[in-house]
Amino acid sequence: MPAFPRTFISTSQLSAELLQATIQLALNGKSDNWKRYRHALEDRVAALLFFNPSLRTRSSFQSGIARLGGSSVVLDPGSETWQIEFQDGKVMDEDKPEHIREVCKTLAGYFDLVCVRCFPQLKSWEQDKRDSIISAFEQHLKVPLISMESSLWHPCQALADAVTLHELFGGRPQGKNMVLSWAKHVKPIPMAVSNSVALMAAQLGMNLRLACPEGFELGGEVLSQVSAAAEQSGGTFSVMHSQPEAIKGADVVYVKSWTPPALVGKPSEERRRWDDLPAWMIDEKLMARSANAYFMDCLPERRNLIVTDGVIDSTRSVVEQQAANRMHAQNALMLRMLGVA
Amino acid sequence: MPAFPRTFISTSQLSAELLQATIQLALNGKSDNWKRYRHALEDRVAALLFFNPSLRTRSSFQSGIARLGGSSVVLDPGSETWQIEFQDGKVMDEDKPEHIREVCKTLAGYFDLVCVRCFPQLKSWEQDKRDSIISAFEQHLKVPLISMESSLWHPCQALADAVTLHELFGGRPQGKNMVLSWAKHVKPIPMAVSNSVALMAAQLGMNLRLACPEGFELGGEVLSQVSAAAEQSGGTFSVMHSQPEAIKGADVVYVKSWTPPALVGKPSEERRRWDDLPAWMIDEKLMARSANAYFMDCLPERRNLIVTDGVIDSTRSVVEQQAANRMHAQNALMLRMLGVA
Amino acid sequence: MPAFPRTFISTSQLSAELLQATIQLALNGKSDNWKRYRHALEDRVAALLFFNPSLRTRSSFQSGIARLGGSSVVLDPGSETWQIEFQDGKVMDEDKPEHIREVCKTLAGYFDLVCVRCFPQLKSWEQDKRDSIISAFEQHLKVPLISMESSLWHPCQALADAVTLHELFGGRPQGKNMVLSWAKHVKPIPMAVSNSVALMAAQLGMNLRLACPEGFELGGEVLSQVSAAAEQSGGTFSVMHSQPEAIKGADVVYVKSWTPPALVGKPSEERRRWDDLPAWMIDEKLMARSANAYFMDCLPERRNLIVTDGVIDSTRSVVEQQAANRMHAQNALMLRMLGVA
Repeated sequence: MPAFPRTFISTSQLSAELLQATIQLALNGKSDNWKRYRHALEDRVAALLFFNPSLRTRSSFQSGIARLGGSSVVLDPGSETWQIEFQDGKVMDEDKPEHIREVCKTLAGYFDLVCVRCFPQLKSWEQDKRDSIISAFEQHLKVPLISMESSLWHPCQALADAVTLHELFGGRPQGKNMVLSWAKHVKPIPMAVSNSVALMAAQLGMNLRLACPEGFELGGEVLSQVSAAAEQSGGTFSVMHSQPEAIKGADVVYVKSWTPPALVGKPSEERRRWDDLPAWMIDEKLMARSANAYFMDCLPERRNLIVTDGVIDSTRSVVEQQAANRMHAQNALMLRMLGVA
Repeated sequence: MPAFPRTFISTSQLSAELLQATIQLALNGKSDNWKRYRHALEDRVAALLFFNPSLRTRSSFQSGIARLGGSSVVLDPGSETWQIEFQDGKVMDEDKPEHIREVCKTLAGYFDLVCVRCFPQLKSWEQDKRDSIISAFEQHLKVPLISMESSLWHPCQALADAVTLHELFGGRPQGKNMVLSWAKHVKPIPMAVSNSVALMAAQLGMNLRLACPEGFELGGEVLSQVSAAAEQSGGTFSVMHSQPEAIKGADVVYVKSWTPPALVGKPSEERRRWDDLPAWMIDEKLMARSANAYFMDCLPERRNLIVTDGVIDSTRSVVEQQAANRMHAQNALMLRMLGVA
Repeated sequence: MPAFPRTFISTSQLSAELLQATIQLALNGKSDNWKRYRHALEDRVAALLFFNPSLRTRSSFQSGIARLGGSSVVLDPGSETWQIEFQDGKVMDEDKPEHIREVCKTLAGYFDLVCVRCFPQLKSWEQDKRDSIISAFEQHLKVPLISMESSLWHPCQALADAVTLHELFGGRPQGKNMVLSWAKHVKPIPMAVSNSVALMAAQLGMNLRLACPEGFELGGEVLSQVSAAAEQSGGTFSVMHSQPEAIKGADVVYVKSWTPPALVGKPSEERRRWDDLPAWMIDEKLMARSANAYFMDCLPERRNLIVTDGVIDSTRSVVEQQAANRMHAQNALMLRMLGVA
């Protein structure tokens, strides 16, 4: 098997073979709650850097690392007291006392693995699309790096969802119909989860329909990546502007809000666009049009705004399984990246 | 022995037999600093959720879990960035992005035990007496739950104090005279510690005197619970409105401020009531009326406001022993709840 | 070998023999990444108390303790919610709910080691020079205590730098020429690192030149301590007011800003003094006057204000090695203090 990459920023870095092997390791580990790997990371310490807050990601990484015998240290550079300068060549006479170069040198001395969460600022698409924080870590850090969600991608969510899809469809998600449906929200929302989930569905060879209003499509380069991945895996990919049409015959309905590139940094225009639209929320009536679809959602979720209580609490909802698989997928990922399994 | 309950919200959940067994395990563990149980929680990870800050509780849980070979993850939903919706059926279009139902589903996937601290808001007794946060966790969480102090109870403090009382009185606190004395404070204070300490003294069969000014009694249902527990254990319970009279002949004096139900949410009225009262503070003169009583206090303590330096620093003060026993009592509790001992 | 002191507040507490033994243990541990000591602290739990923020110190202590099999708990009394009263005899009716005496009693019950970081307030030299927070812990705490930087000293940085100097000079830093150079900054900066680094260089028998403008010398008592240490170790110590002269022939150039005693609490006077001075920054031209000196810096560092990109990125810069040695030095220190090695 080819070596695992030293960084994990997007699932596009994983060949079909590596992806399959990682999913399989996650399922194996889950089956005995990682007993066989209880001491696998005994000598390893990971840093978890959160530029943004987290429940699921922090809990699943910390618990998962502990279950493998390793240790984790949470660092919070997002607090006001520890600002990092990312620009090269700058005279650092303002409020940021430390440069990313020294941050990376320092972390490499103490940690075997660094995980970073850095959301987009949602002020400018030109800026967000550069994904500059995770890229700076990728450039300067000498030890393995995992993205816990950056401006553009949330690869660990996608990997966990791949594990769930394997469980739901007896190891064969390819050829199944999956809808990734946009939803109206109350505030601007990053594209990272949607980008990664769409790409993963395509990598798994599913028939993916992206359901969103006109003008709310994901970024052009993402659409190209998803198309290319579908072509390679034998899946299909289409964009549909009618939610009811898209859901017809679906085996999986995944809901997620996002702000499209053209509306990043324009919250009042985004709100006007929402006001002009009909309802975009997953309810029982829409789900009835599907092929008894599973309901997926990465959480956190705003009930009765994005999805009704009836759908998220139904027996076809697998949100709990998705959340649990975050830990299992990440454990498999860490074991592979660190060469332990 | 009957099975241990899956949740620990109040010591009322413990039969005399379970209480006795837990105290005994705490004393055994303390005797060799938990060496015999060094790997007992090796496969377990606990979440510690703090809606409110903590020194003793966080330190004692984290250190205690580590000494048993387990791991703990501290989560702080009280920070502004992660608000939980507790109301069912709500359209979640405001500032709370996640529902307690999903929080509990998520936590159950990563943790073997969840511990929650959630103080009352002290704005409305009608609201505080519902103890709604800990109740929501009790309702929705599928894994063991320990309260690290809720609106109404602080069961871990009471359990630790039971261990201390056993140590002080050679394993036989029953029949000893204990005074739980109110004290003047500078701000409104929850009833949780006082409720749990009073109930525990009654459960242990002590002769409990609640010393407080008229109108400052604990809530009516608590008084009934305490009376019933005293009756069952062979102890006695009385409320006395004179501090000097109450302390006469006491074997233990425990001091704690609290805001009574009738004054919750009325801080200016509470202050006026304080101003009309004589001094209510534990000093050497009062202690001299006791039967050479031990001085107890759950800490933190405001010196020379609630108790004089002379009393808290005296040889009869056992506050350090009480604090240390928090860890030992909680370790015993966790081992029993998780079925490891 | 004499016993290690129970507290570590300044490297002055270490005899030449203990210092040498600790450096050697750090180098041994580093050589196999502490494999031989993997379970040395298995039964130990340390509290890390931060009155001020930290990246390197927190990361290196937490990672280092984990690598020795121990556990650490981070406590943040600096947040607004948990204020400590340090004054004795006070009526505690204001905003500080707990006295340092009870804090120390409590911590001793849960932890085998307490590490404290407490910066000076830089408002009054009379106050800062008392180093009152670390002194209060020293007075009241019954378990081992390590300073993670106090008002006057940063002994762990100095110990780490001693390890680095041993590595750079094949175990024989004595007799080498070291310049500790002041630099212009944009805000008042504590003296702790400079004090400890100067003292350490003297303890190691180096020829130390303190380079700073007139009136920017370190505190008088520190200068006396450094002189005395140099005399005892066979080193030399001088203060020079010309940066170019001081650097001539240097084997090591260490840069650090500080606010001298006479300017503490007087930021506008300090700024006026800066404006009157020529440039004080380490650049390639200055370094060219040295004997191909190593460049040292404790980090964090403001590039192009204190040191140019060209110098900190050069092959003679050892800042990464210095940062990594924080962990190794501290691990050796903890093993010695706790009597494990």
